[in-house]
Amino acid sequence: MTPQQASDPASLETSRYLEALELERQRFFARQREIMLPVSKETLPLLDSIESLSSGGKRLRALLAYWGYRGSGGAGLTPSIVKAGLAIELFQTAALIHDDIIDASDTRRGAPSLHRRFEAMHTDLSYKTSAETFGVSSAILAGDLCLSWSEMVFSSIPELTAQSEARFIFDLMRTEVMAGQYLDIVGEVVPEEEPELALERALNVIRFKSAKYSCEHPLALGGALGQDLKHGEPSSLLHGYRTFALPLGEGFQLRDDVLGVFGEPETTGKPAGDDLREGKRTVLTAFTAMKVSAQERAFLEESLGSPQLDPATITALQDLMRNSGALEATEAMISEKSEQALSQLAELSIDTDVMQALREIAAKALNRSS
Amino acid sequence: MTPQQASDPASLETSRYLEALELERQRFFARQREIMLPVSKETLPLLDSIESLSSGGKRLRALLAYWGYRGSGGAGLTPSIVKAGLAIELFQTAALIHDDIIDASDTRRGAPSLHRRFEAMHTDLSYKTSAETFGVSSAILAGDLCLSWSEMVFSSIPELTAQSEARFIFDLMRTEVMAGQYLDIVGEVVPEEEPELALERALNVIRFKSAKYSCEHPLALGGALGQDLKHGEPSSLLHGYRTFALPLGEGFQLRDDVLGVFGEPETTGKPAGDDLREGKRTVLTAFTAMKVSAQERAFLEESLGSPQLDPATITALQDLMRNSGALEATEAMISEKSEQALSQLAELSIDTDVMQALREIAAKALNRSS
Repeated sequence: MTPQQASDPASLETSRYLEALELERQRFFARQREIMLPVSKETLPLLDSIESLSSGGKRLRALLAYWGYRGSGGAGLTPSIVKAGLAIELFQTAALIHDDIIDASDTRRGAPSLHRRFEAMHTDLSYKTSAETFGVSSAILAGDLCLSWSEMVFSSIPELTAQSEARFIFDLMRTEVMAGQYLDIVGEVVPEEEPELALERALNVIRFKSAKYSCEHPLALGGALGQDLKHGEPSSLLHGYRTFALPLGEGFQLRDDVLGVFGEPETTGKPAGDDLREGKRTVLTAFTAMKVSAQERAFLEESLGSPQLDPATITALQDLMRNSGALEATEAMISEKSEQALSQLAELSIDTDVMQALREIAAKALNRSS
Repeated sequence: MTPQQASDPASLETSRYLEALELERQRFFARQREIMLPVSKETLPLLDSIESLSSGGKRLRALLAYWGYRGSGGAGLTPSIVKAGLAIELFQTAALIHDDIIDASDTRRGAPSLHRRFEAMHTDLSYKTSAETFGVSSAILAGDLCLSWSEMVFSSIPELTAQSEARFIFDLMRTEVMAGQYLDIVGEVVPEEEPELALERALNVIRFKSAKYSCEHPLALGGALGQDLKHGEPSSLLHGYRTFALPLGEGFQLRDDVLGVFGEPETTGKPAGDDLREGKRTVLTAFTAMKVSAQERAFLEESLGSPQLDPATITALQDLMRNSGALEATEAMISEKSEQALSQLAELSIDTDVMQALREIAAKALNRSS
């Protein structure tokens, strides 16, 4: 979150927003510390773990909300859009905490995942019974607390009412993410099925768990706040935002899936082939299943999700995805989504700074290596 | 939730409120079904499981909110107090879902706990990989979804703003519950310590995880809604509510702890001595540690939380708690809290129906067998 070199008005504005967001985040945790201390100072590791995890990340969602707000007439750096951004980022932190339990991930943002941190604390303090159980239980509670805090921050937006479109979007976003996340874990456990069905499910997971949540809803939420829109009121700008940000989010997640298999550990902060070990069912794995021989498919099915996946098998799976043309097909889909997003972006009636900022966000989301 | 025999105005009003609450609950789940269906019909087990669990329970918290509202001038059966009650009950449902994972509880409200339901579904549908892992992962997501829904319902209260005292109470309540719950699991894992420290922690757990959450905050929240109170505005009625409902909640939880050890499975819906098997550290166990010999204390420490606790050891632990005077000391504390609560209740300036309703709620909470 160090300020970027601000060579143009949009970058300067982005830097200022990120600084305000960080200040608000620090103030928020300082206030919560005052509330938790009377319960017992023994509860502070819960707060510390959330504060630490929430300090990282690219802030993609908050930035989309900010520029959505600015593009719809929102008056720059207001308390409302800073709070909205923090609320969305805390929601993301909560989702990561529980995702890492569900996926049994050891690392997050280049550090141990939260359940692993609590597990280590259990060992360090010579606590009794199972360190692993204590780690998971503590991380469940940390995620719950962070989820409530996200909502608490969102509800503190001064102009928000029960009828605000922004409230409606925030609520819908959360239901869709959790439903999409459940669909994701169902995909990992259903018995072997037609690859077309797996592809359909993977596309739904991308859309609801990721694209709408990471891009479409944050941008629209910022836009709705900027226009002080009531639920049900039509807004052609919001419609335009959505037709741009949905394919952007789909491309973003497809890129994430490719990085989960082919990404470099140094840049992703995750072990090589991590998604293969977790058994994630993605568009990439569905394409692979559709394009390989029956024998190769059996190998794919039995390897995905095997916890003891060795480096040689990971390389073999990577080769299968590359040689079958599945990687190429996924890259083609990313290109298609990118073009769709960028052509829709060009159609938006927004001022040039906002246009430039959104173009840069889109470029980073689609062409990243981490 | 069947309407009670309504022999007096307060009981009639209670029945009407519970009916309205149930109707609102059913309408809410019907609406959420419409939102989840487009994600995929495969996601509906998530909703079904929450809907089913939320249909049970004593509605203690919602009823306290209702009568708090009525006592402070709230106009009876308004959409606001129905929504507030549903929000609190959904929060309770979410807390139970995650508590049962943390405590590895197999049953809840006389039926399998949510992670066990999803585990059974995994087996029934011949899903791959670990049924247990799928059960826990699904229940983590179900709890998250239910937590968001609780908030969604709360935020739909029409007159609520960012400055409402009711909003402040709802937020504080959630932070305190989760911090208290974390303190509870810390109590189960810390190495052997002075019983006085264990007692102090157990009293904090009772206060923050349970008494404030189950009694004090719901009653105050209803009162704040009824007065349309802004945060920071003084209210002698709310102060009175709190001095009544905090000891009520403490007595309620102490009764719960006694039932967790001595309760009958047929009435509690939980196996005999369930809290002993879970290793719950309560005021009762702290009193026991303070009152027994070193040898008995070693037996207590090694038995609490042992998953293979046999019926004979459970009986031996029950005898230890009874014969040491720890049970008696706990019962004395329950009596003291009861008297404190009831004498504070008598001081409140509320109309006779409200007084009668609160007196009945208090009696049920303190003298229950399930």
